[in-house]
Amino acid sequence: MDEEKMSENLKTILSTKSTSVEICREGPTVMIGERINPTGRKKVLAALQEGDFEMVRQDAARQVEAGATVLDVNAGVPGADEPALLSQVMREVMSVVDVPICIDTANPEALETALKLYDGKALVNSVNGEEKSLATVLPLVKEYGAAVVGLCMDDDGIPATPELRLKVAAKIIARAAAIGIPREDVVVDPLAMTLGAEHTAGLTTLKTIELVVAEFGVNITMGASNISFGLPDRKYLNAAFIAIAIHAGLTCPITNPLVPEINTAVLASDLSLGRDEYGMRWIKSYRKRRKAQTK
Amino acid sequence: MDEEKMSENLKTILSTKSTSVEICREGPTVMIGERINPTGRKKVLAALQEGDFEMVRQDAARQVEAGATVLDVNAGVPGADEPALLSQVMREVMSVVDVPICIDTANPEALETALKLYDGKALVNSVNGEEKSLATVLPLVKEYGAAVVGLCMDDDGIPATPELRLKVAAKIIARAAAIGIPREDVVVDPLAMTLGAEHTAGLTTLKTIELVVAEFGVNITMGASNISFGLPDRKYLNAAFIAIAIHAGLTCPITNPLVPEINTAVLASDLSLGRDEYGMRWIKSYRKRRKAQTK
Repeated sequence: MDEEKMSENLKTILSTKSTSVEICREGPTVMIGERINPTGRKKVLAALQEGDFEMVRQDAARQVEAGATVLDVNAGVPGADEPALLSQVMREVMSVVDVPICIDTANPEALETALKLYDGKALVNSVNGEEKSLATVLPLVKEYGAAVVGLCMDDDGIPATPELRLKVAAKIIARAAAIGIPREDVVVDPLAMTLGAEHTAGLTTLKTIELVVAEFGVNITMGASNISFGLPDRKYLNAAFIAIAIHAGLTCPITNPLVPEINTAVLASDLSLGRDEYGMRWIKSYRKRRKAQTK
Repeated sequence: MDEEKMSENLKTILSTKSTSVEICREGPTVMIGERINPTGRKKVLAALQEGDFEMVRQDAARQVEAGATVLDVNAGVPGADEPALLSQVMREVMSVVDVPICIDTANPEALETALKLYDGKALVNSVNGEEKSLATVLPLVKEYGAAVVGLCMDDDGIPATPELRLKVAAKIIARAAAIGIPREDVVVDPLAMTLGAEHTAGLTTLKTIELVVAEFGVNITMGASNISFGLPDRKYLNAAFIAIAIHAGLTCPITNPLVPEINTAVLASDLSLGRDEYGMRWIKSYRKRRKAQTK
């Protein structure tokens, strides 16, 4: 990648009341823990439906222990009062860990309630290029001084080419700027679709990252594990894809830090790319893995 | 990377008497099996010293079964008659598998004997930018119609920067061309040094790959596992580094296909980069891994 453009990379700062996390291309890749989400997790879903938050607290603590420095919080339980439930889950998370939260909801009321409750600078997950989404989400992001994930899709769905996804990113960045949200507070998600359906899906995602980074220098997030949906040996596939995506420009994947292959892929990518001085983080993480194994 | 330049990527064709292997950036990454090498492998060394080639035959068969499509053959046993031993080891390898050989020797006499013996187009490992090496190796490569690995080092040692390594690659490519070796038959090795000594070593290697590919479009090889020498959890580090290097332009790593993390990293990188149509190779390799596990 071009040196001059690389030096223009923007920093996104998220915070809690007492600490902050900087997302940037020069520093360590920020793992946003994905586990606090009932989607596809029957046990979590059942626990939330019963008002049992022990699992949420455990997921929060374990992910942070494993290296997540931001936690995604999703409380999308069918039929539940999402504003109330999301707020409750956030309180549970904040009671055990002190890391910024990525508020993951498609419900505007739940989003506003969560933003009101949160003391710090959160990451809102997400806005997209649809007119309705832009009109609803961006004003809340602005009002509460948050950062926001911008998904590369719009009223016409998910564009097939990197060039068209770049256009959606450009639209979101422009609309955010128009109401005073600085570019560094838009974190673009290029969208990762499964390789099982289309074997060039990974390449499309990677090229979108490269185009968006070259054009705007913004941070990039992604639910990287989508790429392997329906394929065997997902952990190996996810590990290689996340390493390549970090090389392409991914800075804050939404992922599961409890999977050793994923966790080490992120740390090894940072070391491979000269972002882990003296390999200190690599060696520290190795000691932690060994300790966990001998427990 | 630039689309126009990518389309200029060159193809290196290696062959045996009856089959051939094409190395190129659009196709599958070619794994050059590294195991037939007594360096650092005491058992192999002892066996070769005793004239026992059973291990060589096993290493050949197992690496090809695991997906290597070229085999590196090194017979550097201290005190041995290398021309005779290398030829013998090559004959043993050729008796069990039908894949092109990468002749790995620093001994010009052993190299010539091996080239004379070999029926097909071999890969010579290696020439470098030293005057003595260029003068000795390139004429043999030309005479026997082989391809050659060009190491990015010269009389002054291993250059510290990607730009200086590119210069060495340019020198080797020019000197090869001057005696009629086409550019596509020079496979450049950017050199991977351990991250344990210098945490930017990986970045230097990756940038060298990008520069050499952009400038010359040649194929790239590398002993990728050097990167992790002296560090813990090498397999994870090697897996991420090889994935990133493939994204940067590596096309034929010299590696150990028997390590599942490495093998899957190579295959997953191809799939992630759209080089594995319908994911057929990924699924096939998965079935092979499962079968091996249940044996």
